[in-house]
Amino acid sequence: MCELFGMSARYPTNVNHSLALLRPRGGQIGPHADGWGVAFYEGRAARIFKEPTPAAESRCLAFIAENDYQSSVVIGHIRKANPAKVGRTAANTHPFSRELGGRSWVFAHNGKLPGIREDPRFALGRFQPIGETDSEHAFCFLLNQIAEASKDHWLEAEALAMVLHAPLLALSELGILNLLLSDGSHLLAFANTNLHQIQRVCMEHECNQRVILLATAPLTAESWVALPSAQLDIFVHGELVVSRACQPSGTESEQVG
Amino acid sequence: MCELFGMSARYPTNVNHSLALLRPRGGQIGPHADGWGVAFYEGRAARIFKEPTPAAESRCLAFIAENDYQSSVVIGHIRKANPAKVGRTAANTHPFSRELGGRSWVFAHNGKLPGIREDPRFALGRFQPIGETDSEHAFCFLLNQIAEASKDHWLEAEALAMVLHAPLLALSELGILNLLLSDGSHLLAFANTNLHQIQRVCMEHECNQRVILLATAPLTAESWVALPSAQLDIFVHGELVVSRACQPSGTESEQVG
Repeated sequence: MCELFGMSARYPTNVNHSLALLRPRGGQIGPHADGWGVAFYEGRAARIFKEPTPAAESRCLAFIAENDYQSSVVIGHIRKANPAKVGRTAANTHPFSRELGGRSWVFAHNGKLPGIREDPRFALGRFQPIGETDSEHAFCFLLNQIAEASKDHWLEAEALAMVLHAPLLALSELGILNLLLSDGSHLLAFANTNLHQIQRVCMEHECNQRVILLATAPLTAESWVALPSAQLDIFVHGELVVSRACQPSGTESEQVG
Repeated sequence: MCELFGMSARYPTNVNHSLALLRPRGGQIGPHADGWGVAFYEGRAARIFKEPTPAAESRCLAFIAENDYQSSVVIGHIRKANPAKVGRTAANTHPFSRELGGRSWVFAHNGKLPGIREDPRFALGRFQPIGETDSEHAFCFLLNQIAEASKDHWLEAEALAMVLHAPLLALSELGILNLLLSDGSHLLAFANTNLHQIQRVCMEHECNQRVILLATAPLTAESWVALPSAQLDIFVHGELVVSRACQPSGTESEQVG
């Protein structure tokens, strides 16, 4: 399995501290030695750094973690290939990205989705995987759904949640699906087994900053909260704006804040 | 204007020496201080590093140039924004990339194409620019042409040249169009004003390596050769495989080697 990291903030900030905490889990104190990647949004564009090598040994990740990359939306991933035969290549390294509607979309996944390629429900369209992972197939499938429903136009959080409800429910039936997805504005988090979050708010001294951090395993000793199973949460500027249960019973989405 | 760099090789190699020669042109001995980027292919996937800051001052580029990134196809670019109002952002930094048919396509451009947005001949489809450059618009236009003609299937060099003949001719009428484009297998070079190449062959000592280097301005004192104006050259594994004049008179393409 893999480790996910996500951040949504009101104002751009760096994530050096979190990256420094994640890094040793990639092959040193954790087993996720098959690659790492981090996407930093700058407006509608994502700058992505990734390598199919252990995060803990990466000079490139050390370099990034020491630099002051400022961003309002970040998605990071450290990879444990599963099954091991899906190799350590650039094409198999998360996060994945595609352009849709003049924006970079970025996706990272923890879990496995056996049978996704053979299942006609997940047939692909214009977005095709470059590598061999279940994860990239799921990403292409979700983007195809968004492209068809939106006709390539930008969707608000509530509309995105409506479009993704059924596809996430269907994918979720295949196996383990903990994911982060972003269009540079919205940060979407969905987990059917494991994802935690914490919000940091600093309203003092004219700071006025608000940050959501997401991770499969809590990064610090603070009180991280587990996301409810099979719930899609959408964050904008460090705040939860939509929360929707993706269950067969289909409780309605809840507009938050 | 900008500087382009391209490499196609029979076997993977690094381009550390060329990057070290290019780097000072980005804001130190040359005026191209508005960004830099390098794409290294690994199979069908491209790993892209880029920054909207001067190459000459970039610690990240220095780091890459010192590392041993091995690849058979490389596209690099250092940027001088033109007009200056098209800002120094990640979205405006070359090379650009998109997925088509399960491959990363990468594009970099030297020149300017005034009027491209307003001209109905260059209307866009499913590939849309993320930034504001003429260059990315031209890339999206060319990819749309390839996607429509190929129905998202992989094209051989000769078929690619046929598809791109008319679009390159039309774009070329707008202004300065010196470009590099790749799908990870083919490296395409087209210039209506300025692009040079040199081939290095090492057949001794069981080396058997063959490399084509392309650059707007020769990087060394060797005898670099200027590409004929308005000619599309396609390289595979360090060798020219198709050469096609893109002129109104339309001389037929020539299958080489």
